[in-house]
Amino acid sequence: MIDVVAFDGDDTLWHNESIFSVTQDRFRDLMSPYLDGDHDVARRLHETELRNLRLYGYGIKSFTLSMIETAIEVSGGRVTAAEVGAILDAAKRMLAHPVDLLDGAVDAIEAVSATHPVMLVTKGDLFDQESKLARSGLGERFASVEIVSEKDAGTYGRILQRRGLPANRFLMVGNSMRSDISPVLELGGWAVHVPYHVTWEHELVDDEAPVRGHPRFRHLDSLDGLPALLAEFDQTFDQTARRPR
Amino acid sequence: MIDVVAFDGDDTLWHNESIFSVTQDRFRDLMSPYLDGDHDVARRLHETELRNLRLYGYGIKSFTLSMIETAIEVSGGRVTAAEVGAILDAAKRMLAHPVDLLDGAVDAIEAVSATHPVMLVTKGDLFDQESKLARSGLGERFASVEIVSEKDAGTYGRILQRRGLPANRFLMVGNSMRSDISPVLELGGWAVHVPYHVTWEHELVDDEAPVRGHPRFRHLDSLDGLPALLAEFDQTFDQTARRPR
Repeated sequence: MIDVVAFDGDDTLWHNESIFSVTQDRFRDLMSPYLDGDHDVARRLHETELRNLRLYGYGIKSFTLSMIETAIEVSGGRVTAAEVGAILDAAKRMLAHPVDLLDGAVDAIEAVSATHPVMLVTKGDLFDQESKLARSGLGERFASVEIVSEKDAGTYGRILQRRGLPANRFLMVGNSMRSDISPVLELGGWAVHVPYHVTWEHELVDDEAPVRGHPRFRHLDSLDGLPALLAEFDQTFDQTARRPR
Repeated sequence: MIDVVAFDGDDTLWHNESIFSVTQDRFRDLMSPYLDGDHDVARRLHETELRNLRLYGYGIKSFTLSMIETAIEVSGGRVTAAEVGAILDAAKRMLAHPVDLLDGAVDAIEAVSATHPVMLVTKGDLFDQESKLARSGLGERFASVEIVSEKDAGTYGRILQRRGLPANRFLMVGNSMRSDISPVLELGGWAVHVPYHVTWEHELVDDEAPVRGHPRFRHLDSLDGLPALLAEFDQTFDQTARRPR
């Protein structure tokens, strides 16, 4: 049986990337007076983000600091205080943005939490993630919440170890192959991939090909199918457990 | 007996405020061309920080965004891209700054961890705090690590509850009356105040007066005295436990 069902937050339960996209569009507009030959401000920003990841980590504040740095570079040092102020304003709008739950998120959490303890495992800025969880209205549904700086096999391993939970009784649901699916399968856990319609460039290297056909992996187009899939997983587990090792 | 001894990180185990102070000095220098009548740029920055706390939370990235916002305001919109870039550079220096342990921190952690499980309970930016813990070289000493966005009685209560740990078996060591001492005493735990030589303005409203003489409160001038104090606490607990309720 599956003992714990864990959900990713950003772009699995609530929209996140779309909020970044709006700000990136605003940023491109702000930078347009400075873009002579180089129109690929999104690429420049992404390069700045990757360069700063080691120091800043993920999240809106990191993204904002990288936007300001990119603005200085792209403008050749000509960006104005008013434009920097507009970037700060965009950041504050992102942070204060209402939490838009994805279709089916409430129903899925409600259905699954009726039969299994549900956990939130979300990556990013601690303060912002807590704020989003509170504003999502889903806080009470989660038996536990893990906000982490990186979602790799080491992180998931520590989460399981702290609870004395065997990996093959843990199921992770998320939109990111890299962060939600691959590390959990690697540990011996179960994983359900529910892709988001926009995915951050950093994650685009991933797709389902390497794990297609994996016995503990499933794809869903939306969270609606999760309760039925969970029943199927529990059954598969039963069969697996009966096999001699 | 005390079952778990928890330590604050910033300004209890490693220097933090002094790093902010260096950056604040740099910020004042950067702003000095714009300061005609108003020389109190530290106050302006602090006001910006407090105003943004609800959106940004604590940490270096939040501090940096507030510095940039204050620079725009203080300069009347005249701050240059180069000056904003200098603020970003200062932020990166803070984030990459070596972790300077306070005198006695290593010995205290070593001595206490020989007799009690030790926990780190630290407030701030998740990514930055994890990075500091890793760079501190103390990571292996801690049986558990809690990085939290706010240190109030609710937060400590949840930490204890998750572990099934009664408050009167929990001892917190820290430099902040507001964050480390008062909430723990309020819950019924034990608390040792080890003041830091500089304390952030936000914390200055606190002092030991309200809890002086409290049976579960102690003051130490440095971490050196902690192992002896811990033995005394354990003894006090024994005596307390023997009293009829």
